[in-house]
Amino acid sequence: MALKARVLYDFHSENPGEISVRENELVTTGLLPASYVEIIRDHIASNAANNDTANNNGFSSPKSASHSSFASPDFHTSQGSDDDWDDDWDDTLPATQAKSTATVGRNLNRFSTFVKSGGEAFLLGEANALVRDGDMMCVVMGKHGPEWQEDPYPFTCTIDDPTKQTKFKGMKSYMSYGLTPSHTNVQVNRRYKHFDWLYARLVERFPVISVPHLPEKQATGRFEEDFISKRRKGLMWWMNHMTSHPVLARCDSWKLGKRKAERDELVGANFFLTINPPDVPLDLQDVESKVEGFKTFTKRMDENIIVVNTTINEFGRKQMIGFKKEYQKVGQSFKVLAQAFEMDQQAYSVGLNKAIAYTGEAYETIGEYFADQPRHDLDPISDLLDIYKGHLANYPDIIDVQKGALTKVKDCPQQESDLHERCNIISCATLAEIQHFHRTRVRDFRLQMQHHLQQQISFFQKITAKLEDALHRYDEQ
Amino acid sequence: MALKARVLYDFHSENPGEISVRENELVTTGLLPASYVEIIRDHIASNAANNDTANNNGFSSPKSASHSSFASPDFHTSQGSDDDWDDDWDDTLPATQAKSTATVGRNLNRFSTFVKSGGEAFLLGEANALVRDGDMMCVVMGKHGPEWQEDPYPFTCTIDDPTKQTKFKGMKSYMSYGLTPSHTNVQVNRRYKHFDWLYARLVERFPVISVPHLPEKQATGRFEEDFISKRRKGLMWWMNHMTSHPVLARCDSWKLGKRKAERDELVGANFFLTINPPDVPLDLQDVESKVEGFKTFTKRMDENIIVVNTTINEFGRKQMIGFKKEYQKVGQSFKVLAQAFEMDQQAYSVGLNKAIAYTGEAYETIGEYFADQPRHDLDPISDLLDIYKGHLANYPDIIDVQKGALTKVKDCPQQESDLHERCNIISCATLAEIQHFHRTRVRDFRLQMQHHLQQQISFFQKITAKLEDALHRYDEQ
Repeated sequence: MALKARVLYDFHSENPGEISVRENELVTTGLLPASYVEIIRDHIASNAANNDTANNNGFSSPKSASHSSFASPDFHTSQGSDDDWDDDWDDTLPATQAKSTATVGRNLNRFSTFVKSGGEAFLLGEANALVRDGDMMCVVMGKHGPEWQEDPYPFTCTIDDPTKQTKFKGMKSYMSYGLTPSHTNVQVNRRYKHFDWLYARLVERFPVISVPHLPEKQATGRFEEDFISKRRKGLMWWMNHMTSHPVLARCDSWKLGKRKAERDELVGANFFLTINPPDVPLDLQDVESKVEGFKTFTKRMDENIIVVNTTINEFGRKQMIGFKKEYQKVGQSFKVLAQAFEMDQQAYSVGLNKAIAYTGEAYETIGEYFADQPRHDLDPISDLLDIYKGHLANYPDIIDVQKGALTKVKDCPQQESDLHERCNIISCATLAEIQHFHRTRVRDFRLQMQHHLQQQISFFQKITAKLEDALHRYDEQ
Repeated sequence: MALKARVLYDFHSENPGEISVRENELVTTGLLPASYVEIIRDHIASNAANNDTANNNGFSSPKSASHSSFASPDFHTSQGSDDDWDDDWDDTLPATQAKSTATVGRNLNRFSTFVKSGGEAFLLGEANALVRDGDMMCVVMGKHGPEWQEDPYPFTCTIDDPTKQTKFKGMKSYMSYGLTPSHTNVQVNRRYKHFDWLYARLVERFPVISVPHLPEKQATGRFEEDFISKRRKGLMWWMNHMTSHPVLARCDSWKLGKRKAERDELVGANFFLTINPPDVPLDLQDVESKVEGFKTFTKRMDENIIVVNTTINEFGRKQMIGFKKEYQKVGQSFKVLAQAFEMDQQAYSVGLNKAIAYTGEAYETIGEYFADQPRHDLDPISDLLDIYKGHLANYPDIIDVQKGALTKVKDCPQQESDLHERCNIISCATLAEIQHFHRTRVRDFRLQMQHHLQQQISFFQKITAKLEDALHRYDEQ
């Protein structure tokens, strides 16, 4: 349904695909940032619009928060039943509803992320939701610049092996994961679609926070062991990231029931209302240079991740095929030598013949070790690189919001101190998120490289033990 | 010079390339077994003929043995000077004189090895040299059949790094090896040509003993380090084989000066005169079946050695090129990751960046380890296989002599007990030599496989240590 609207402010297109409009111009178009226009024909209630797009930075009236949680047993039942969850909306199907609010809305909207995310609306002072004390997020000035204040109630959440569940007398089956949050220690069951829903909520809610992508959907083989194990690991990493992020971990979407969470008003522009910056405002030039530096960093990391990923995948493939083959060929040739030697039928050569044949088998086993190894120490690195590739893909939008704010402020006179304060809030949030990215990255890559090296060491020790075993066969009998 | 000769016995050709001749036939040809013909035109003194072919199974008068030795300082000087050694006859030139008596003579002569080696002459009772007690070699009946009696005075001989020597005011240069026999502990210097001479003497002297080939001649690069080291190792193995062979170690050729050794009469047919068999003669059928079994064994070992050698050489090549490249590519990609990470310039990531860069270097080093490894643990196996390939090439001739004797005896009436006794001597010598081959083979391959596995273990331990070193770099600073 096209709406007619009057443009309230000049808008200068800055990116390909954006349309410049002038104050008082009349426009007829499908998607527009609400803060730029005044709808003419009739009044679409913002509460209703809230259910249509993620980018309508809602004006619904505040509601009292429920105490049910994504990771608590009353997440479903707080709404009385599981009816909110469309059963066709399963983990192998595109999660249409969730996706449309998160990704599709963004893709079709031709306005810059600065506008779409609500960053501009906040900057222009149009965010006006009610924020309770408990919703406030502090950015503090740390040793290395602005950072999110640590969650005072940190928690973790384990994900157990999923079990296959059936519904409708076995007509429908799905995998159910046992989640146990450390602060309740009560296990609840969740499906992939619940994660997918949470992901969509978080993306919608936080303009300058990088919400990592969920492990990939897969249409076939979703009950196969390898896939299940890989997905569980992916969900565990995702969950760890969530619970260790000071902002994401405290997000109400975890606590609200489905309907309430979807009506949560502290999304987009209003998110910035919850941010409490350090006392001393940041130097704008310093912010600009830091964000520029990070942009260069992400570009380089993104490029180099591809190099590393290609190389280690190729290395894994070589070990699984080439290395295995070489060791097995050597093993077979030793066995062939033992076979020739067995023809002499001298009693004193039996020990040697057996030892050589055993050495042949040892080499064949070592070939198997090589083939089996990549999934222990290369695949996890590859998985991590994929996760970070997704992370990095989030940052252009985050940087866009921050740059949009900076650009806007540069055009404004210094006396507009409210504008400068709001720009400072966006800058603080962005730099805190960048800092969090680096801290998480250093932690994740340190752990992953340690894991890789530990696995490699075990691998070579296993080979050494096998060879020592073979060597003992040569002791004179 | 062609000689005219009268044929003394009928000879029925048994192999392709042999010519059948009848008693009293007159023949004109270059090479003939002396025992079959009577030279007509003039009398070539057998002493002189001794210097022409190896297969003229000499009739020179016995001489008192000199006490100089191949491995003692007076080997040269026992003849008053080094004049016996043709200086042009150097290690890179074909050792014409020595070769002609050993190999060339055999190749051109179209009679079977049984005839050429003197086996037939001995069987027919034509060997008649003077044998002193000290020259006698006992074959004893061991647990696994006939075997050479152990040398009562075993010795070993070390070969030191060769030094480059010059002659004729630097016009001529050669490598000189320092030999130290354990029974004198006095070092003497020998050149490759001296080994070559000894090899030729031994081949000529012993019809049913496998004298291993010397390490290959090489026309160019003979002063290069790799070649020198490889040749020294080859000569050491050869020398060990010589000194640990009960017959070869006791051979007078080691002790006689050059001229005397070349006039040694206990060669060919006469060698069998020195063999003292066990009291109970062997069962001919048993001998035949054992020799037949050994023939099958050598054929199979020869074929399988090729498979093993091809495989391990290919494996070595893969490690030197492919494996090295893979580890280095992974190393480089880790360095590339560290380079991207260095762009963030956060103080807290410096430790990780350095650790990842170090891991990259560690992988590059591991690549070098792989490239360097084959010469430590695959090349020595390959060298041993080559040595045994040479050994195996000696056996058809040895088996020929034994089979020739068996065939001859089968045609003879039982009352020819001398013939049977002499056939038993040949059989005992052959079976003792086969037994010695197996014992040496079991010893050599056991040692070589142990060496290989020990080297592989050290190799993988070295890799493990490198990875552990890298792992420690990730400890939080």
